Amino acid sequence: MRWSQMFVPTLRDDPAEADAPSHRLLLRAGYVRQLTAGHYSLLPLAVRVRARIIEIIRAEMDAIGAQEMLLPALHPAEPWQRSGRWELMGQEMFRLRDRRGADHALGMTHEEIFATVARELNSYRRLPQQWYQFQTKFRDEPRPKGGLMRTREFTMKDAYSFDLDGAGLDASFGAYHGAYTRIFERLGLPALACEASSGTMGGSDSTEFMCPADVGEDLVVHCPACGYAANIERATSVLPAASDAPGPAAPERFDTPGVRTIEDLRAYDAPDDRQIKTLVYVLDGTLTLVLLRGDHPLNEQKLVDATGATGIRAADPAEIQDALGALPGSLGAVDAFLPTPLPVIADEALRGRRDMFTGANTDDVHLRGVDVDRDIEVGKWADLREVEAGQRCVRCGEALEIRRAIEVGHIFKLGDRYARALGVEVLDPDGKRVPVVMGSYGIGVERAMAAIIEIHNDDRGIVWPLAVAPFQVTVVVAQSDDAEVAEAAEDVYAALKGAGVDVVIDDRAERAGVKFRDAELTGIPFRVTVGRRGLAEGTAEVTARATGDTEKVPLDAVVAHVRSLLRR
Amino acid sequence: MRWSQMFVPTLRDDPAEADAPSHRLLLRAGYVRQLTAGHYSLLPLAVRVRARIIEIIRAEMDAIGAQEMLLPALHPAEPWQRSGRWELMGQEMFRLRDRRGADHALGMTHEEIFATVARELNSYRRLPQQWYQFQTKFRDEPRPKGGLMRTREFTMKDAYSFDLDGAGLDASFGAYHGAYTRIFERLGLPALACEASSGTMGGSDSTEFMCPADVGEDLVVHCPACGYAANIERATSVLPAASDAPGPAAPERFDTPGVRTIEDLRAYDAPDDRQIKTLVYVLDGTLTLVLLRGDHPLNEQKLVDATGATGIRAADPAEIQDALGALPGSLGAVDAFLPTPLPVIADEALRGRRDMFTGANTDDVHLRGVDVDRDIEVGKWADLREVEAGQRCVRCGEALEIRRAIEVGHIFKLGDRYARALGVEVLDPDGKRVPVVMGSYGIGVERAMAAIIEIHNDDRGIVWPLAVAPFQVTVVVAQSDDAEVAEAAEDVYAALKGAGVDVVIDDRAERAGVKFRDAELTGIPFRVTVGRRGLAEGTAEVTARATGDTEKVPLDAVVAHVRSLLRR
Repeated sequence: MRWSQMFVPTLRDDPAEADAPSHRLLLRAGYVRQLTAGHYSLLPLAVRVRARIIEIIRAEMDAIGAQEMLLPALHPAEPWQRSGRWELMGQEMFRLRDRRGADHALGMTHEEIFATVARELNSYRRLPQQWYQFQTKFRDEPRPKGGLMRTREFTMKDAYSFDLDGAGLDASFGAYHGAYTRIFERLGLPALACEASSGTMGGSDSTEFMCPADVGEDLVVHCPACGYAANIERATSVLPAASDAPGPAAPERFDTPGVRTIEDLRAYDAPDDRQIKTLVYVLDGTLTLVLLRGDHPLNEQKLVDATGATGIRAADPAEIQDALGALPGSLGAVDAFLPTPLPVIADEALRGRRDMFTGANTDDVHLRGVDVDRDIEVGKWADLREVEAGQRCVRCGEALEIRRAIEVGHIFKLGDRYARALGVEVLDPDGKRVPVVMGSYGIGVERAMAAIIEIHNDDRGIVWPLAVAPFQVTVVVAQSDDAEVAEAAEDVYAALKGAGVDVVIDDRAERAGVKFRDAELTGIPFRVTVGRRGLAEGTAEVTARATGDTEKVPLDAVVAHVRSLLRR
Repeated sequence: MRWSQMFVPTLRDDPAEADAPSHRLLLRAGYVRQLTAGHYSLLPLAVRVRARIIEIIRAEMDAIGAQEMLLPALHPAEPWQRSGRWELMGQEMFRLRDRRGADHALGMTHEEIFATVARELNSYRRLPQQWYQFQTKFRDEPRPKGGLMRTREFTMKDAYSFDLDGAGLDASFGAYHGAYTRIFERLGLPALACEASSGTMGGSDSTEFMCPADVGEDLVVHCPACGYAANIERATSVLPAASDAPGPAAPERFDTPGVRTIEDLRAYDAPDDRQIKTLVYVLDGTLTLVLLRGDHPLNEQKLVDATGATGIRAADPAEIQDALGALPGSLGAVDAFLPTPLPVIADEALRGRRDMFTGANTDDVHLRGVDVDRDIEVGKWADLREVEAGQRCVRCGEALEIRRAIEVGHIFKLGDRYARALGVEVLDPDGKRVPVVMGSYGIGVERAMAAIIEIHNDDRGIVWPLAVAPFQVTVVVAQSDDAEVAEAAEDVYAALKGAGVDVVIDDRAERAGVKFRDAELTGIPFRVTVGRRGLAEGTAEVTARATGDTEKVPLDAVVAHVRSLLRR
């Protein structure tokens, strides 16, 4: 490949719109251009990197016996309606009507559609099956951002497992866990396997592969001591056991003029951890009281996961005033002080607590001496609080850290949810029809590309790991107008190509400085510079992008030297 | 790969819904399943064939210096509006609104979108450029049919060339013409390069690659003597020169009670080739008279191409009665007999004709002695007639044939239409900003797969050409329950794999007959059968799918034998 003929529109300056290092570098190094918010054109270098990433993923999928398929991107509504996700996916799903007026969706994911194919499995003898594809996914993201990090259109490797039972699913899930670990290692991504929320996917269990990075949109709770890792939407921590005095026989009202916050109430001898915080949410249309300890923040995803609610929002003050007769600041769930009965969901940290403080549902009035078990009709106990840094690890008791991270993979144990909804049944060994048990396993290809750049860059540009680089080597003709230099460089280029090296020659009529800058910006792992000075003594310079280390190498030894570098 | 673990759901019987041999075989041999009309799931064997086809196309694109990119499938309306095709594409374009209410389209083709990227070319120094992609195209076909032949969602290799001028475009177009010729040859498709209509693509010139096949949706006019080939939408033929008597000084009315058709009028000494047939069309809302010789059929695409009309339909009888005061059967374009002036477009075959017959725009009345140049105000002359078999070739004068064919590729000289509409300009060598000149070049990947099957099949199934086969060889274990047979077959399988042969082993617990049937149905080029009988004498059977030829080969010579077969 000749740089003079390639379309690599590098930019001299940082683009103003870039909001993440990978975004900035992908634009500046001429890898991508935005068509419209969330939709990117991949230019030739990006297509080469994408192909390398796909090759690695495909090899590891094939290695665990998965079979590649390709299912449609545009789906009829029917399978989505059967699973209930036609509604559930809400605005994130692109929808359209065809010329006959039939409803369709652009695939955000393919559980339903793979399930329709799996109906033909029929017998346990055909199980297990592992199916995957590389297919475009479309998601109408409210806020596309970070260049390739969060887009409305991207390539996903999505895989699906079909097993007869939970033990089979566990084995399949384990195989993908291993494959993902190897994939991210080969991609140069230091991904942590984290316990995660399954979100709209459903199912019993899921693991996210998280790459620590400042621009990450997720928070990972991590124990450096024992390796425990979980998305903050799922993470738990150990709390010191509370030992409360019994308190009075019934809650006592007391006036709290002007008190609106946890902090305000402290003045009444009510430390944060003895207060009950009462939040009001509307869950699928139902006003619900959500209780946490005064010093504990709510994690909304935990509330979603605990309740299975599909529509969730904080109630507005008018709704609250209407139902409880008071404004936020004086709310409480104590039964005797509730004007109307409302469902109550409480965080586990409140279980058994006594002599607590909370609002009395009258502005400027609170209660003391509240015994949670005695005074509050808790409909559901759940883990709702968001873990905070420094809290203790549930596994080893050491202090937890919280880090920003990029989700580069997510694997799910789905159980039989989709199989039941879509009628994917097989005859089991006893001749009984049973739903199959499914798993689903995804990697976003272009996000992986962006994540690799987030991890592998410096102030001069991208530093691709060899396995995913668009080229392994660039041969720079330092003085293109010098026929002797050009000829020697062409010889080196031809020799490297002949040796199977993935090489480009920068034969542009540009100054050497421009070529060096572009070689560094685009992140090609090795640069071979052929210039007048070296030529006089029969050498070329070989420079490693990652370290900047440069060696003089005799011209006739360049191929052997480069090959030894590539083998390392 | 092991057949026992693959998902290849072959069917015992022909599926009822299949309307083409390739459709029937793709379903029956377990290659595809329909999700909904026009949307197919490609199962593992089809994905393998698709990958082979893509590899061949990619290699030939790279060989002419084209660079692979990947542009979005979902497009904002704006570039389509700028080119005018937002309207032009009509119902065939899938459209949707995103969560912000912005209009989007699913890409049917990518001229506009590649043009947006090409804006960055800026200087003639960066030209020519050849860009291509493999991307999903979406088209809301009114009648998806033929399995993979005409779908609503398919992979297209679309390429675009950007040149400074027409000479550059000619060179680019020539390069793609050559590449396409090689691609179809490698795919086993006997494609004819045909002159074609450019349809909604616009531009000056286009060539279709047409594969003769009974299920083809196109008609190709072909001269077996000189090789002339053109789509019937574009084809011409030589007509014998007419020598007319001058006829009377003005047209003469005469009564023709009950005459409604060309045939009816013959009774009045009016042979078909002396009649003027008057058709009434509504072109972009304007009633227009379309004239042809009585014995010449109209080709509607020619009318579209001649007028540039985007909306075209035959007028209905009420509209005709309203405008002309008569019903079809007595219509004519003679100026003196037109109640209201209407635009007239006439076929070239009528030029200069005299003493002709036509309707008088009064029911049951016709005219004779019509001199076309004298009596009819022709606004536009054009080639409108559809060529018929047996007419004479414009190049060599021999008799033309008409054959059904599948369009497997289409290449277009677009000129500067898109560049002007989308502002793709470069500085030319004189420092002047000029629009670039574009070409566009497409191959439908899955349609190519179907076309290959149409050409390469027999009564037992598909017969893949080696270059695109999902596997080169299948090793059939004739008696899976015989440990010795199974072991010998596994040895052969391992040896072939070790030799780099793309091989599958049919290790299912099925009868040999079932395995033979599936090997034939799925079309794998070579079968190596390891069975009890052969084993006794130390041989396996090697069978060629295409010919059925079977040879006994010593077990230790199978690899060498197969490799020599693959090299042929």
